[in-house]
Amino acid sequence: MYELSGTSIIGSSRGNSLRNPHRAFNLVTNEPLEPQYFPASDDEINQAAELASAAFQNYRHTSGRERGEFLRRIAENIESIGEPLISRVTAETALPIARIQSETQRTCNQLRLFAALVEEGSWVDARLDRADANRTPLAKPDVRSMLRPLGPVAVFCASNFPLAFSVAGGDTASALAAGNPVIVKAHQAHPGTAELVGLAIRDAVRARNLHEGVFSLLFGPGAEVGLKLIQNAHVKAGGFTGSRSGGIALLRAASERPEPIPFFAEMSSVNPVFILPRALRERAAKIAAGLHSSVTVGAGQFCTNPGLVFVPQEHDEDLIAELQRLMTETAPFTMLSSTISAAYRSGIERLQEGSLVNTIVAQPREDNQCSAGAALLQTDVKSFLDNRSLAAEVFGPSTLLISYSNLDELIEVARQLEGQLTATIHGTNEDLQESRELVNTLEDKVGRLIFNGFPTGVEVGHAIVHGGPFPATSDGRSTSVGTRAITRFTRAVCYQDWPEDTLPDELRDDNPLQIWRLVEGELTKAALTS
Amino acid sequence: MYELSGTSIIGSSRGNSLRNPHRAFNLVTNEPLEPQYFPASDDEINQAAELASAAFQNYRHTSGRERGEFLRRIAENIESIGEPLISRVTAETALPIARIQSETQRTCNQLRLFAALVEEGSWVDARLDRADANRTPLAKPDVRSMLRPLGPVAVFCASNFPLAFSVAGGDTASALAAGNPVIVKAHQAHPGTAELVGLAIRDAVRARNLHEGVFSLLFGPGAEVGLKLIQNAHVKAGGFTGSRSGGIALLRAASERPEPIPFFAEMSSVNPVFILPRALRERAAKIAAGLHSSVTVGAGQFCTNPGLVFVPQEHDEDLIAELQRLMTETAPFTMLSSTISAAYRSGIERLQEGSLVNTIVAQPREDNQCSAGAALLQTDVKSFLDNRSLAAEVFGPSTLLISYSNLDELIEVARQLEGQLTATIHGTNEDLQESRELVNTLEDKVGRLIFNGFPTGVEVGHAIVHGGPFPATSDGRSTSVGTRAITRFTRAVCYQDWPEDTLPDELRDDNPLQIWRLVEGELTKAALTS
Repeated sequence: MYELSGTSIIGSSRGNSLRNPHRAFNLVTNEPLEPQYFPASDDEINQAAELASAAFQNYRHTSGRERGEFLRRIAENIESIGEPLISRVTAETALPIARIQSETQRTCNQLRLFAALVEEGSWVDARLDRADANRTPLAKPDVRSMLRPLGPVAVFCASNFPLAFSVAGGDTASALAAGNPVIVKAHQAHPGTAELVGLAIRDAVRARNLHEGVFSLLFGPGAEVGLKLIQNAHVKAGGFTGSRSGGIALLRAASERPEPIPFFAEMSSVNPVFILPRALRERAAKIAAGLHSSVTVGAGQFCTNPGLVFVPQEHDEDLIAELQRLMTETAPFTMLSSTISAAYRSGIERLQEGSLVNTIVAQPREDNQCSAGAALLQTDVKSFLDNRSLAAEVFGPSTLLISYSNLDELIEVARQLEGQLTATIHGTNEDLQESRELVNTLEDKVGRLIFNGFPTGVEVGHAIVHGGPFPATSDGRSTSVGTRAITRFTRAVCYQDWPEDTLPDELRDDNPLQIWRLVEGELTKAALTS
Repeated sequence: MYELSGTSIIGSSRGNSLRNPHRAFNLVTNEPLEPQYFPASDDEINQAAELASAAFQNYRHTSGRERGEFLRRIAENIESIGEPLISRVTAETALPIARIQSETQRTCNQLRLFAALVEEGSWVDARLDRADANRTPLAKPDVRSMLRPLGPVAVFCASNFPLAFSVAGGDTASALAAGNPVIVKAHQAHPGTAELVGLAIRDAVRARNLHEGVFSLLFGPGAEVGLKLIQNAHVKAGGFTGSRSGGIALLRAASERPEPIPFFAEMSSVNPVFILPRALRERAAKIAAGLHSSVTVGAGQFCTNPGLVFVPQEHDEDLIAELQRLMTETAPFTMLSSTISAAYRSGIERLQEGSLVNTIVAQPREDNQCSAGAALLQTDVKSFLDNRSLAAEVFGPSTLLISYSNLDELIEVARQLEGQLTATIHGTNEDLQESRELVNTLEDKVGRLIFNGFPTGVEVGHAIVHGGPFPATSDGRSTSVGTRAITRFTRAVCYQDWPEDTLPDELRDDNPLQIWRLVEGELTKAALTS
């Protein structure tokens, strides 16, 4: 269906820079993959940004219905790639087929969720405060406002989600839904996947007769192409999922521009799990099984992977024995790249240095650059608090058990934690009642609190929050998943005494879109009556 | 009622640092004012921040009703200061009494508006997505979320609004309403005003039995005390209204912290006014009168002061003649400080350098350090576009008329503009229909568009947006005025499979607060039924 060419997608054209080619690696066969991918040249980056800026002038005024149809068309186009997409993702990521299928479905569902949101239309938070010519000492003007798109958005693909957090992932979906053109920077590990999905979006742009600049896809290293993209004056915001160092570098570039722009980076999280005493006594084996699955799913390559597990010192034998058994029996994984597996191995070795951490399971590595074995390590709260480096993220299928002897220790740990995407508590209702202070402290540190569950598996919906205080993300006031994300790339614009016939539909007296609006502070779908 | 002591208010205590005293200046009598004000010491800054952090643990869990009562009490306490407050503001700012009275009323109305908002409660954007145990392949969890406060907020007082953007101003009101403790840094020009209002808030904290750390007030220079405050690890966000250099310095400090924090700085805006041809022909004299009033009100010391006025070259005689007459007749003003009036005079002189700008009116200055005369200058679009420095803000009672010959010139000007708080169009409906491209371009540059009105006078309500793209503010996605501002100091927190009886009231099944909630994507006040 789509032939891979290896050059950037610049609106309806293709890049022609043929310097410094890069090949992705087939993680299944250990061979380099065709075709070669060519980093976008400075000219190509500028072209994409200029096209996006030109496209914004029209695209921002498309209706919610038009944007909904566009998003649905993208989903259809992705689904109709079928087998070639599955094979390419498999080769570039070594992820199991079932995971690739479910991630494809999730990506398309997400596009359709945003389509439905903008078709309905109330997300713009329309507000109308009426005029009062008789108010003293000054007449009151008519004031109306609604959320509007920001302009071209740069989206950076994540290594660990080749679909759901990549070319047509959450940031692209929310940015396009809100009326912003998107320029994606492909990830170097899965450029073929990126090109396939990019072509699906380009074709949707054509099919819906949108300005070609609504979407571009650039190949090349983040430190060059990505940095130049975020520094381009036409770009008005950015979204990123990846490493802390990469996120911080781009965040700094975004804030040091002559015109600083919002930059949403999701970076690192160790997602602590707190097992309370009664829960442990009641169901140690069940918790062990759930933990094992959450730690090892996707080779532990999820931002919500539970990296720290706090276990009561008393009665911890059953849990540890069962976890030890499960982790020992776990077959080795192929990780997403040799860089990631090398970082994983050195992360484990770093934990093992010195005498603070006890190794319970450390699977030997296979003779494959990308391989990684599950690992289970253990320490106690005192060692953990004395050595902050034990709290650093180790990206991969490992977890660190930390023995605690009383609730005060847990509260102290929670106070010392950096910002996290999630925190999880396993307990009975009685445990939870006794732990109000722990919960309060955690509420302040995370985006999502989970009770008697596991942090992996992020539900895509209206209520979800996938974000959290720094350094989990660069801006803890935002989420990268769910419909709340549509506000990332928007701002409110206000119209004072503006003539009715030139107002946006969302703000007209008769409420032609039948959306919920805040009229004089009251939510209503009613038209304005004089 | 309140005796001024000159030391910082640290919770329920007073600072005791007695070094480097500073005296405010009576702008009416030209004499230094009693008492001396002592900059907060590093210890005092830390104490205020630690108290705020401790207070946050309780204050964040107060109900909307409790916070509403607190805000109303603050308003009552401010109102009951009465004459001593008016006299002190008069002395420290030289603002007319009517303005001080209306600003006091505005400040108290604003506190009551936020009180009503949190008493009603729907502002938290509560969202509930229900569980579905039968969903395949994975059961769907119960996910609920709502906005929560961030933690201690640092608020910086503005020189030009001693009440409405100072100790109990918009940022303080929105931060307290959302559940955040506040630490205010007083402005050096009106410390006595700050102390009076600060004592009114401290007494409200006592009267409502809140933790003393909910409010502190620090004296001292922004470059020392302000900088240390924003760098303090307990502080989780900041709000500022003032100069571009001051705002940028604090913004940089906020983003370079080990844990970067949101910082909202409102900095500079020239608020362009575009007069379209038919409007000019129809009502030149009326536009001139409105402009004169908007340029000179409050000695031009408003962030929404119209600094650039684009006038059609044809038929501009009546408008210019009338403006010239009005500006010539305008009596000189006393500005808010000698620093401000010196900056005003050098701003005018900078415009007059070279031969590009024609001086129509330049009132001679009086023999007073703080005095300033109204000024009217003129240039044309070509000179304006060739010399970007002509677009810089001159804070004070002046405006620059810019002659244009056609709509294309206006569109080009709009494209070149930096971000602004407002843009204003004077036109007939026919003018407006012909100017879609101008309007589209302006929509992208400003927070508020005004038709046939003037930018000064910011309505406090639900729909208002007082913000705009950089450099008008540091974060164009926010507003510092109106109820939308309550989201500045909040973030969404999500609860997954959380037991009903430990959920916040806002997220409980039975909706005990009777607030609007998004249940499965539908807005409703209904309880959740099983």
